[in-house]
Amino acid sequence: MSATINEIRPGAYFDSVVLMQLQRELAQLQGVIDAGVVMATPANCDLLISSGFSFDEGARSDDLLIVIKADDEQSAEKALAQVDQLMSRKRQIQSEGYLPKSMQAAAGQLPHSSWVLVSVPGRYAAKVARDALDINKNVFLYSDNVSLEDEVELKKTAWERGLLVMGPDCGTAIINGVGFGFANHVRRGAIGLIGASGTGLQVITSEIHRLGAGISHAIGTGGRDLDEEVGAITALEGLNLLTRDVETEVIVVVSKPPAPEVASRLLSAAWGCGKPVVVDLIGHPAPARRIGSLHFTSSLTDAANVAVRLIQEDNESGIRQRINPEESTQRPKFARGILAGGTIAYEVTIGLQSVLGPFFSNLHIDGVKHLPDIWKSQEHTILDLGDDTFTQGRLHPMMDNDYRIRRLRQESADDEVSVILIDLVLGEGAHPDPASELAPVTAELLQKAQQSNQLLEIVCIVIGTDEDPQDLNYQIEQMNAAGAKVFQDIGEAIIHTIDAVLPVQSKEWTEQNPELLTMPVSAINIGLEIFSESLRSQGAEVIGVDWRPPAGGDERLANLLSRLK
Amino acid sequence: MSATINEIRPGAYFDSVVLMQLQRELAQLQGVIDAGVVMATPANCDLLISSGFSFDEGARSDDLLIVIKADDEQSAEKALAQVDQLMSRKRQIQSEGYLPKSMQAAAGQLPHSSWVLVSVPGRYAAKVARDALDINKNVFLYSDNVSLEDEVELKKTAWERGLLVMGPDCGTAIINGVGFGFANHVRRGAIGLIGASGTGLQVITSEIHRLGAGISHAIGTGGRDLDEEVGAITALEGLNLLTRDVETEVIVVVSKPPAPEVASRLLSAAWGCGKPVVVDLIGHPAPARRIGSLHFTSSLTDAANVAVRLIQEDNESGIRQRINPEESTQRPKFARGILAGGTIAYEVTIGLQSVLGPFFSNLHIDGVKHLPDIWKSQEHTILDLGDDTFTQGRLHPMMDNDYRIRRLRQESADDEVSVILIDLVLGEGAHPDPASELAPVTAELLQKAQQSNQLLEIVCIVIGTDEDPQDLNYQIEQMNAAGAKVFQDIGEAIIHTIDAVLPVQSKEWTEQNPELLTMPVSAINIGLEIFSESLRSQGAEVIGVDWRPPAGGDERLANLLSRLK
Repeated sequence: MSATINEIRPGAYFDSVVLMQLQRELAQLQGVIDAGVVMATPANCDLLISSGFSFDEGARSDDLLIVIKADDEQSAEKALAQVDQLMSRKRQIQSEGYLPKSMQAAAGQLPHSSWVLVSVPGRYAAKVARDALDINKNVFLYSDNVSLEDEVELKKTAWERGLLVMGPDCGTAIINGVGFGFANHVRRGAIGLIGASGTGLQVITSEIHRLGAGISHAIGTGGRDLDEEVGAITALEGLNLLTRDVETEVIVVVSKPPAPEVASRLLSAAWGCGKPVVVDLIGHPAPARRIGSLHFTSSLTDAANVAVRLIQEDNESGIRQRINPEESTQRPKFARGILAGGTIAYEVTIGLQSVLGPFFSNLHIDGVKHLPDIWKSQEHTILDLGDDTFTQGRLHPMMDNDYRIRRLRQESADDEVSVILIDLVLGEGAHPDPASELAPVTAELLQKAQQSNQLLEIVCIVIGTDEDPQDLNYQIEQMNAAGAKVFQDIGEAIIHTIDAVLPVQSKEWTEQNPELLTMPVSAINIGLEIFSESLRSQGAEVIGVDWRPPAGGDERLANLLSRLK
Repeated sequence: MSATINEIRPGAYFDSVVLMQLQRELAQLQGVIDAGVVMATPANCDLLISSGFSFDEGARSDDLLIVIKADDEQSAEKALAQVDQLMSRKRQIQSEGYLPKSMQAAAGQLPHSSWVLVSVPGRYAAKVARDALDINKNVFLYSDNVSLEDEVELKKTAWERGLLVMGPDCGTAIINGVGFGFANHVRRGAIGLIGASGTGLQVITSEIHRLGAGISHAIGTGGRDLDEEVGAITALEGLNLLTRDVETEVIVVVSKPPAPEVASRLLSAAWGCGKPVVVDLIGHPAPARRIGSLHFTSSLTDAANVAVRLIQEDNESGIRQRINPEESTQRPKFARGILAGGTIAYEVTIGLQSVLGPFFSNLHIDGVKHLPDIWKSQEHTILDLGDDTFTQGRLHPMMDNDYRIRRLRQESADDEVSVILIDLVLGEGAHPDPASELAPVTAELLQKAQQSNQLLEIVCIVIGTDEDPQDLNYQIEQMNAAGAKVFQDIGEAIIHTIDAVLPVQSKEWTEQNPELLTMPVSAINIGLEIFSESLRSQGAEVIGVDWRPPAGGDERLANLLSRLK
């Protein structure tokens, strides 16, 4: 027969490392079978139950819960009696030397520090981070269990002040050679990373190191940065920083599944940054292996491999635009596609949408908007004219160009349209000479646009072989002569269209500290003491704060105190 | 002032090619501005309206609608008066020689024909295809507007009889060098394709040809074959055929967005087929660039490139299993992952699920099932133990192995579990020697499993660098010594797990005609005459049927007649 006893200590706060160590030491005492020492959150209580513990109900999240299962009651009682002694010994070992009691005091001792590392429990973390922004420090917010509202508010504040908030739930970052949180020891080099994914960054940086290359900086954003509500504020700030960082030659962006519209905003910024960008948006279909300077990968290892390959190549340079997390003020022009090939329509839509944002279509693709009236395009629209609706009692558009020609006229009459994509699919069964019908109308519409000063391009994708009955080269020649931009590669047609349509971003935003990445790391650490030790071991300047929750963790009292202030 | 007149001819059926040509000839007559000659389906009426035509209401889908817009009423009337003359001239040109009036008559003339090509209007197509199966012919079903129910029924019937139904809405196929429907002229070679995407096949085959390689066969399935209801019957049949085809060395599978569960069924079959398979599931996130013999690509051009590269390499051989579109009868064993790295958990889940089918998880990924009770795994389960729920008031599992060890014990106690995945993430901030805690429990649990004859593997992913404080090699050695299968590459861990878990399919299914792909193409063509011409021009044997809709297209009469039979 075993015996289980427990003790609840109301409103007692301890560093999680202390609790883990205490639990382990209790479990090793004579006669003890198992022990649990946790803050009594609902999840921790469930966990203890699932591990076979029983204990008194009624403990709150702020309370310390100690449970001991032993061979007999005597051994259990004996173990419990040792808790205070073990705990005070921990305290003595841990707190070597004097630590300031507040962030403000620490900042007084280290006035040039640019970072505050926050790893206090989630419910206190937003307040601590806000205080850090108020004294003009950048924040590495390791804490999780921070609300989305707090995250949005912190990041907006930081953005307005030219500061960076990495997190919440930011497990890792490497700034100027120093790892924050969990970080592997890696070679210094030319690859800069932005990660809305903690272990994603760790896997990629370790693999880059293994391949013999190195890291300039790795900027963590927290896992929700690419959610719709946050809008990639930190990722876009990181992109700005790495764009201007001379050491960084190739940028890697890694994220857990992002919101599609936010992903295209980030990619449209990356498109213009002037450096090759490797993109691994996990669970988000890659639109192609490569679109212009964007290289899409489908695993972490693959992302590392592609990045290392790219630093060995000659890369384009020149920043085409400044990156702004706010919407562009310039009115965008639209792309339209009226395509005979259904799968061509899919590939074009997914490719264009990945950078240009939402498209309307009669295709059923996740994240693509349903076109309410198929007879009338709106904003960016791609139509599959081979769809059932269009071919009932009528030939497929690969054979019959009649409606395509009517629709070409209709799209070109819309002066918000700057690119119209069409396709010519050759081969057996298809129209014997499609260009003979599509080239004249292309020439006519381009001429009309020119006369009315409308910037219009007709992009034509030609699919076929040199053995096809229509004569591939003759088809291309006719379309070229009519003024169309002709591509045999769908990917190149996509790149050309994005370049023609992407609005140039014009609005300036608050300047970040341009030296943030290059000056020596100097930080204030609030929360887990191991992070101070880790920074110090890497040669960074760090000062810890002897942080305690307000009012000893008693929330009602803390609220009362804050109202009395 | 222009004038528009129209005529409705009830229940008149014409080949769509005839209508297109008639419309064109009318539009070219003197004084005529524009003309429309269509079957009066709702879509065609909308289309005429969107093109600026007006006409009498009340025409039905079975009726022929002729609309003429001319400079004046006289020119319009004059054009309309010529319709019959133009139409009868078309008929004369088209119908050279005698054509049998029924499929049965045609089959009598060409008894060894193995294919029936069907391109009649959608509402008649299922019946014609069914008749073809009844006389033991394989079907190329070009027609669209066929119901999903009819598709499922046709394909199940075909599968039971060892026949193939390509389509409905199958735009293209290449069988033994002969293109069906729309098909490009391409070199003969070692790459076999399966396409639930018509132009997808055309783009890839054209690109393979351009790269200097060639095609053995290209099997079309129709765009809905990978929908849940159809369950990839034709794709799986195609995979069987290409697996056994000696000419085919590499297989390419291309599809519009598939149903995730059907995709994994197809991929688990492809996994075992013994030939390298290039997979381009458009709009479906690729789980990796490569998992074992499956090569994932993210564009059509990319798929062609990878396939061509693969035929130049030495490839594995040996068919591991027969492919069966029905569920395996053998009870599967389950994989469990209890991972500290969130992104590692994502990548592992997406990779395993792509082949093994649905996983439960606390991760929020499209297509991954929500684990109702995070304290208890079920079937295939991957847990991110770094998730907020697990880390409130408790250290991250990269620092604290306590719960992982408890959960390892729990998972291994389930005798339906054959693989447990764990990860060791090294670096600053992480546990100073995680293997010292995880290796002993690994050894203990593996030993216990062995004693009770449970097939259990513990797969351990180690992430870190040779400069990390934990000593990477020492960590690996400890886990190896404990009997774990250790991988530094997540992709390799995924492959190992799939191989350990994938059930061997045992049930036999009806044998297909093993010579279907290798015997000379001989076909009966019902519908568009141009497809007869196209097959003949490619040297195939073909006989057309002078098909008319039952009861001249009058559906009520047709129903009446069929009941009188």
